[in-house]
Amino acid sequence: MTLQEKFRENLKKVKAYQYALTLIGWDSNTEAPRNSFKRRSEMTAYLSKEIFLIQTSKEYSNMIHELYNHMDDYDDLFVREIKKAKKDLDKIVNIPEDEFIEYRKLINDSQIIWEDAKKNSDYGSFKGNLKKIIDYNRKFALYYDKDTNPYDTMLDDYEEGMTTKEYDEFFDALKKDLVPFVKDVLKKSNHQYKELRNNHYSIEKQKEFSQYLLDEFAFNRKSGLIKESVHPFTWNTSPEDVRLTTKYLEDYIFSSIYSTIHELGHATYEQQISTEFDDTLLSGGTSMGIHESQSRFYENNIGRSLAFWQTHFNKFKELFPEQSKTYQAEDMFKASNHVEASLIRIEADELTYPMHIMLRYDIERMLFNQEISVDDLPSVWNNLIEKYLGVRPKNDSEGVLQDVHWSDGMFGYFPTYALGSAYAAQIYYAMKKEIDVEKMIKERNIKAINNWLKEKLHQFGSSKSPKELMLLVTKEAFDPKYYIQYLKEKYSKIYN
Amino acid sequence: MTLQEKFRENLKKVKAYQYALTLIGWDSNTEAPRNSFKRRSEMTAYLSKEIFLIQTSKEYSNMIHELYNHMDDYDDLFVREIKKAKKDLDKIVNIPEDEFIEYRKLINDSQIIWEDAKKNSDYGSFKGNLKKIIDYNRKFALYYDKDTNPYDTMLDDYEEGMTTKEYDEFFDALKKDLVPFVKDVLKKSNHQYKELRNNHYSIEKQKEFSQYLLDEFAFNRKSGLIKESVHPFTWNTSPEDVRLTTKYLEDYIFSSIYSTIHELGHATYEQQISTEFDDTLLSGGTSMGIHESQSRFYENNIGRSLAFWQTHFNKFKELFPEQSKTYQAEDMFKASNHVEASLIRIEADELTYPMHIMLRYDIERMLFNQEISVDDLPSVWNNLIEKYLGVRPKNDSEGVLQDVHWSDGMFGYFPTYALGSAYAAQIYYAMKKEIDVEKMIKERNIKAINNWLKEKLHQFGSSKSPKELMLLVTKEAFDPKYYIQYLKEKYSKIYN
Repeated sequence: MTLQEKFRENLKKVKAYQYALTLIGWDSNTEAPRNSFKRRSEMTAYLSKEIFLIQTSKEYSNMIHELYNHMDDYDDLFVREIKKAKKDLDKIVNIPEDEFIEYRKLINDSQIIWEDAKKNSDYGSFKGNLKKIIDYNRKFALYYDKDTNPYDTMLDDYEEGMTTKEYDEFFDALKKDLVPFVKDVLKKSNHQYKELRNNHYSIEKQKEFSQYLLDEFAFNRKSGLIKESVHPFTWNTSPEDVRLTTKYLEDYIFSSIYSTIHELGHATYEQQISTEFDDTLLSGGTSMGIHESQSRFYENNIGRSLAFWQTHFNKFKELFPEQSKTYQAEDMFKASNHVEASLIRIEADELTYPMHIMLRYDIERMLFNQEISVDDLPSVWNNLIEKYLGVRPKNDSEGVLQDVHWSDGMFGYFPTYALGSAYAAQIYYAMKKEIDVEKMIKERNIKAINNWLKEKLHQFGSSKSPKELMLLVTKEAFDPKYYIQYLKEKYSKIYN
Repeated sequence: MTLQEKFRENLKKVKAYQYALTLIGWDSNTEAPRNSFKRRSEMTAYLSKEIFLIQTSKEYSNMIHELYNHMDDYDDLFVREIKKAKKDLDKIVNIPEDEFIEYRKLINDSQIIWEDAKKNSDYGSFKGNLKKIIDYNRKFALYYDKDTNPYDTMLDDYEEGMTTKEYDEFFDALKKDLVPFVKDVLKKSNHQYKELRNNHYSIEKQKEFSQYLLDEFAFNRKSGLIKESVHPFTWNTSPEDVRLTTKYLEDYIFSSIYSTIHELGHATYEQQISTEFDDTLLSGGTSMGIHESQSRFYENNIGRSLAFWQTHFNKFKELFPEQSKTYQAEDMFKASNHVEASLIRIEADELTYPMHIMLRYDIERMLFNQEISVDDLPSVWNNLIEKYLGVRPKNDSEGVLQDVHWSDGMFGYFPTYALGSAYAAQIYYAMKKEIDVEKMIKERNIKAINNWLKEKLHQFGSSKSPKELMLLVTKEAFDPKYYIQYLKEKYSKIYN
């Protein structure tokens, strides 16, 4: 067996475990009975441990190093795989096994502690765990590279090639240009469309509309399906098996519509990746940021456009004649772009959303620079959200305790949400140079948009880095100006 | 690590793979998108191969033999595990690897060939594969034990301890007593209740009735769920995760009702097994026959009783007022016990069902005694069904090609279906000596019946053999007389 064949054989094993874990997770999030959790956690712990044992074994490490030292012998695609494998290995290989096990246990325990703390708005009961999680993450990042700012290492975990330097530039631009603009808009945001947004909408009819959207966005039903879950998500085991969930709320119509379209963005990306990468490390979307750019593009650039509602308001009226009778397509457009300074990130609108991310980035950056400690978090949080959006949490549940990410050890993840929206805007302008997006939407030809994205971006899976992809798709490096331009254009029009 | 700990550790790995395979199979049978099959078959083949490699490794074999040679050192439960493991090992260990792989491939290919043959009623196109499957099965049985009739080895695969000698006695008793009785009843079966059975019943209302049944039968929803599939089935990964499916037909009300109750029988058995067996070879129901006895007991002895319909006809009328308005509870009882000589096993009623099994047993026995060849099958089949039920297939699709079992290499499986019904009758009479079953049904207290079965049978999982269980539950060895008595009593009453 050649070294490359050995690598493939080994990957096959890991892929089989991951395939199983993905389907078990899908099941657990969409239908598994409550009491199944005990057996499931035993079984998934076992399968995860097997992956960890393979990937930290001396044999595996030797193989990767040997491949790494002979990269010249291989083609570009395999070299990218080797580099990825080497980096993944380096990220864990220096962590002492007992520390790794302790950390996994800490993360496991912290879930319930965070949930309770959030429920009771009791930051004090979570603070100790949070500090330990932060300390471990700093330590692990330094094991990987003692000469790099730990937060830079973490940022790179979620978005290959991104550092504080680049994120600082991005968020500084938003701070300079967007914060004053948002404050301006918030003053003018007086059409609430409350009776349109929060009327009673039958779940059955909402389901019909979601099914309609799947077809309008040309989702391949033979290679995927839609279900429901508390937090909508998209999971895939291959481009031929991509599953999304949505969430139906009786008294808030936009929950299911925009969850469905958002997840359709993730799902379309995954469905359009070339199957040639299935058995390689280059399968799946390339990064969190690029993935989010696709979900946000479909959700906001398409789904919250005037052209979208001009095209689909008839279907909406057919399903909800009572609720919509005094409204026009333009009202739907405005209602779905209603801007409000809210405290909760996941409920935020397109315009204020990046403010929520900015504050989390500021905090993570200060934490890992040791400028603030976990003791300072609630007040730092509350001051920042007030600074950016002019609102202040009444308690920590609607402040520092609202997100699951930190309790799960995910630092450096949040910035990719805003980055994704900014990527989306830049891609949007590039696309408009080549195809008439508005016309395609009005002609119910979203398939043409899918095809463009497939050719320029989706098909490549993880075989190219986010930076390479942005260059390929937009013919220039990432530049936040498009995002600011897009938001200003759109919201100036809506709010004059 | 002691040998017992090593055994546990090894089993843990196998159980983790089996857990994954079970959930992947559940997904595949209930919702997976069509195009997912390719990736899934690669992944499941890999996971199955891993199990096979573990269970045929020299190391595993040595461990089992050493445990087997020192059984005196262990308690009864572990001794039963060792014996099971030893038998499972012996069944495969002498099969040359290339023959095993060829056989798996043959079975794989035969699925589609059988499907097509059935669709086109073209037995000739399937005959060659069938012959090879039979030859392999005979060969494999002889590898295991060259001094035993191969068919006896196969019968034992599906029902521990059963041989042709015992099945002959069972089926001879049916032939002698039941065949003439069935012919008698068929002559008198003139109330068809066609407009009750085959009216239009909305799927939504049928679903409501199935949900109602789940609660009436005290199904533990925290440890299970119901979905739909083409062929109803029950799968479980532990007593705390037991899932059943049912099948809704718009124009045949009894499909969903009796699929649901039948599967509830399997599911209740699995839910009531002690969790202490989870990590052992003694988890799950003990045999096909005992499992079928539980599904048949709930379906027929409870679900098709007069008391059942006297208790639940009100709910039925509430859901289907139009369809039921000219009928009484007794009509539902009679309609659900309508007897008809049919050609298709899976559509047969409770009374004629064992005739279908008898003929399959006759044929399997003759095949493996080499009294007939695959060339003779269609005519032997047609003659036998005519002899037992007085009907003759027009083509092989409704004759010898109707079942999937043989194309899948399952010989010796069919008899457990009839055996299960016979076990059920014997258990039913034993139960009636201790509790008033009819009263429990009328008081909507099926929970009391569940509890009786849990204490006497379910809790033990596979820790006892079918024969031990029958003795424990009914205080005597299995005797087919109860089955004949039960069917005669019930159908004499219905058909005078």
